Amino acid sequence: MSVLTSADQADSADSADSAATVDLGPAAALACRECGERFPLGPIFACASCFGPLEVAYDLPGGDPEELRRRIESGPNNIWRYAPLLPVPADVAEHPNLNPGCTPLVRADRLAAELGVTGGLYVKDDSGNPTHSFKDRVVANALEAARAFGFTTLSCSSTGNLAGAVGAAAARAGLRSCVFIPHDLEQGKVVMAAVYGGELVAIEGTYDDVNRFCSELIGDPIGEGWGFVNVNLRPYYAEGSKTLAYEICEQLGWELPDQLVIPIASGSQLTKIDKGLKELIQLGLVADRPYKIFGAQAEGCSPVSRAFKDGHDVVRPVKPNTIAKSLAIGNPADGPYVLDIARRTGGAVEDVTDEEVVTAIKLLARTEGIFAETAGGVTLGVTRKLLAAGVLDPAATTVVLNTGDGLKTLDAVAGTTGPSATIRPNLDSFREAGLA
Amino acid sequence: MSVLTSADQADSADSADSAATVDLGPAAALACRECGERFPLGPIFACASCFGPLEVAYDLPGGDPEELRRRIESGPNNIWRYAPLLPVPADVAEHPNLNPGCTPLVRADRLAAELGVTGGLYVKDDSGNPTHSFKDRVVANALEAARAFGFTTLSCSSTGNLAGAVGAAAARAGLRSCVFIPHDLEQGKVVMAAVYGGELVAIEGTYDDVNRFCSELIGDPIGEGWGFVNVNLRPYYAEGSKTLAYEICEQLGWELPDQLVIPIASGSQLTKIDKGLKELIQLGLVADRPYKIFGAQAEGCSPVSRAFKDGHDVVRPVKPNTIAKSLAIGNPADGPYVLDIARRTGGAVEDVTDEEVVTAIKLLARTEGIFAETAGGVTLGVTRKLLAAGVLDPAATTVVLNTGDGLKTLDAVAGTTGPSATIRPNLDSFREAGLA
Repeated sequence: MSVLTSADQADSADSADSAATVDLGPAAALACRECGERFPLGPIFACASCFGPLEVAYDLPGGDPEELRRRIESGPNNIWRYAPLLPVPADVAEHPNLNPGCTPLVRADRLAAELGVTGGLYVKDDSGNPTHSFKDRVVANALEAARAFGFTTLSCSSTGNLAGAVGAAAARAGLRSCVFIPHDLEQGKVVMAAVYGGELVAIEGTYDDVNRFCSELIGDPIGEGWGFVNVNLRPYYAEGSKTLAYEICEQLGWELPDQLVIPIASGSQLTKIDKGLKELIQLGLVADRPYKIFGAQAEGCSPVSRAFKDGHDVVRPVKPNTIAKSLAIGNPADGPYVLDIARRTGGAVEDVTDEEVVTAIKLLARTEGIFAETAGGVTLGVTRKLLAAGVLDPAATTVVLNTGDGLKTLDAVAGTTGPSATIRPNLDSFREAGLA
Repeated sequence: MSVLTSADQADSADSADSAATVDLGPAAALACRECGERFPLGPIFACASCFGPLEVAYDLPGGDPEELRRRIESGPNNIWRYAPLLPVPADVAEHPNLNPGCTPLVRADRLAAELGVTGGLYVKDDSGNPTHSFKDRVVANALEAARAFGFTTLSCSSTGNLAGAVGAAAARAGLRSCVFIPHDLEQGKVVMAAVYGGELVAIEGTYDDVNRFCSELIGDPIGEGWGFVNVNLRPYYAEGSKTLAYEICEQLGWELPDQLVIPIASGSQLTKIDKGLKELIQLGLVADRPYKIFGAQAEGCSPVSRAFKDGHDVVRPVKPNTIAKSLAIGNPADGPYVLDIARRTGGAVEDVTDEEVVTAIKLLARTEGIFAETAGGVTLGVTRKLLAAGVLDPAATTVVLNTGDGLKTLDAVAGTTGPSATIRPNLDSFREAGLA
């Protein structure tokens, strides 16, 4: 993808509201993650000086942590309870949006027993979001930025979950949406992307082609007034993943877990969860103590895992080939930051085969009644592998993320999941089946 | 289905815990809905005297409504906050279960504008439950009864949503499950029913055949220790639908809505929502004022709507033929009670064609970003029809139920939902498509 910098995008920013008057709550500026240079809030995502990625810098609320905790606890039962820590205006909960978040943190005792975990095992089940993936969190944040910048069309490139999340969010908000997908997606994902009534454009090409086309579009007059959630709104969008960190700690009674296992696609989610945990410590909302972050990939798309094992700081792109399509990003933008976090916290990055993914999906369903999408299978599969290898501590409090819903990736298990028996409607036939 | 009475089922009850020592919280007895005769709590569902259906009778908490309201509001963020009003033990929230409920009540202003509703229109979106349908509510209540009666296998007959809900609930609880389905279900529903690892038995026959077989099984020694959520646990199971009434009123700020539109399958959900509203009035949790209940059916399975329009008290069974398969019960057990409630409250029962169902699914998706299953399309379609006919009051506060998830009934919209355009990955091709 070509890199648009803050300078290149001045026109685009000017066409919307002036960045100077933008109210995105505690968000104070965009800061380059590489050189630290700061820019006014606007629809930009790359540093004009060094081309590094921009992220949101805050004036976080000071004062008594107990008071902030009470303020959060008395807030709405969705991500907007954390509005004081997000790039959104204070009245965000009044804006029509999907109100994602506050998904269950499931205490998974039966799964823990099978895996030999004694320190407390939890599954953060983000299939409970409105369109059944964690994407609702990030899109909800991008939507507020789109409103602030005066964008009238919400857009993205996607292979599935994101398309549905953007279509639904734009519908609720009354914005136009125009979503771009590769032409050869599964019918289920196409229906989910199209049903919300926005424009859905199929592109004759790969996901990379779709991405490149979206970058072209942003630079063209056609793209004026368009907010691409994962391109020119990316700094705001990405912050939505911090809410996973906030919720996990609040649900644990304002405690940090010892270990978190997080899937890696672009790596953004993992880095933002780390950012969220550090903010909670900084604000005194949780006691400061060490935590370890582990990253999970599918073997068929494991560039970060490979780099971790080889001791490299850079990630060598790969051509993805895995059933975990929502994680199939061969050139993960945040790969180097993931490596840094895994190493700094004493975690690791590991990968599992597609067979292990399917086994893990079924294990989670059988022990906890949670039907995860393939990304969830990757994360639990890696958890299992790292426990067996003695890398994850079974006596530590461990949180595993399930970021999506098995209903969207039925094919992964359909071939090996079906009736135990087919019988005639009588007792003899049932007895013969040997299930009685 | 053959009717098992309290007398017939004495053996089955004896094989489990004694009914006399059962702790199901405020549940005091089972009472016949026809003759009022009372029976001790047990796995029975039909009156020994008159064969009428049994339902749970309570010793509801007395005292200060404010205190009860506070107790509920400080409870868990799921149906167990209403444990004092349900047939479950006080410590139910500690038992491993799916913790359904507290799904969004969406203020649907964009939908209201399209339909001309000015009094406030809300969608109660039960696709937010763990297995994405309202069935998680009823199964969670049946599970507590199964535990109380010492059952070790959770079972049901189902055509889809219920199978998944039972499979998942049993997995979380560590119970065996054995679910019976017709052999010709869609693959998606079969996968969802099987993935939780319980026994799934396909029956060569129709849903009616499956039901008849389950009744045989309950009377046979094989069925000893089996709790069929929608047969011998039905009185407890059905109470789960009351939580929809509780949540709607609490989410409206402890107010009754003026009008509710509710889908009809067996009719149980509608009658239990009415029961829940009456309990809230009785307990002083909401101010007593009139409300109207409207029932929704698909034209291809509209026996209750037909009886309502014809002014009959009895419901004449039909052979279902509609895309709204989760509502396709041709001989709805609670039909007469539904007719009574619709007439008593000043409501109505109406039906819509499959085309109107699809139109309503798309309308809800386009205006509010909610992708409903066909049952939700039926309910919104009927809402629209009754508004156009002047039967529903547009100036009144109206709540429409969406009981399930569009991902489970993709076929309903797949044929008419797809990309706006397919283009090559360049700006010229996009311009030619006329979407810029």
